[in-house]
Amino acid sequence: MFELDERLAADTYFVGKTALSQLLLMDDARFPWLILVPEVAHVSEPFDLSETDQAALWRESMCLSRFLKAHYQADKLNVAALGNQVPQLHLHHIARYHSDVAWPGPVWGVGAQERYVAQEATQLIRTMREGLAPYLPLNPTGSAY
Amino acid sequence: MFELDERLAADTYFVGKTALSQLLLMDDARFPWLILVPEVAHVSEPFDLSETDQAALWRESMCLSRFLKAHYQADKLNVAALGNQVPQLHLHHIARYHSDVAWPGPVWGVGAQERYVAQEATQLIRTMREGLAPYLPLNPTGSAY
Repeated sequence: MFELDERLAADTYFVGKTALSQLLLMDDARFPWLILVPEVAHVSEPFDLSETDQAALWRESMCLSRFLKAHYQADKLNVAALGNQVPQLHLHHIARYHSDVAWPGPVWGVGAQERYVAQEATQLIRTMREGLAPYLPLNPTGSAY
Repeated sequence: MFELDERLAADTYFVGKTALSQLLLMDDARFPWLILVPEVAHVSEPFDLSETDQAALWRESMCLSRFLKAHYQADKLNVAALGNQVPQLHLHHIARYHSDVAWPGPVWGVGAQERYVAQEATQLIRTMREGLAPYLPLNPTGSAY
């Protein structure tokens, strides 16, 4: 039975459900940062998924990447499965800019997280859901938490 | 016409060619760290590849990940497409350990790169090629540089 890791839950907002995954917004206003978490229990590395689910995750990752690049006019995308702190498989997608505070380094562990004001996050998630529609169909009511 | 970015070339050893990519060993003895570079010109994000090449890259990445996890008994793998410094598409695969110098952070930008002694790299690459054979068939003579 899949259950979202509590550290991921504490650091993110729920955006919607894809065919395979939960889509989460990282609660850090410094970067447009979305995370895909396949709803499969006890999976830590992408190759732990079935081949069908691997293909679905890749597809969802590509759709999300296209959305972030286009919608946020990112200079570069960073896509990564790290999981050193939270081993539950989750795939980061971050829109990066030459002007962002961590450029050209990676974002993890840089400076202090800047949490969204709740109302700001609500508005952003609404905009994201609308923008995502042509790229990655979501079920916004499928919240698991 | 594909040409390997000169910064990637300067920081790596050539290990072999896969169906799609060059496989490179990062010249940093602190981490078992392999990089896949699809031999496709002018590609920066994974979704810039054709769907066929996307599928091939994912397959090669999974094979390489299984190898690193098993052969190096990694505690965790880090797989990432960043490209902030070198925009040419390249996919990092790093075997991570609870005991490594960057744990639990990411490896990029941490401390100073520790280059291999040339003979040590030659020996490691030979061992890697043998170990990789059941996971990801390589053409070790297909060096592009």
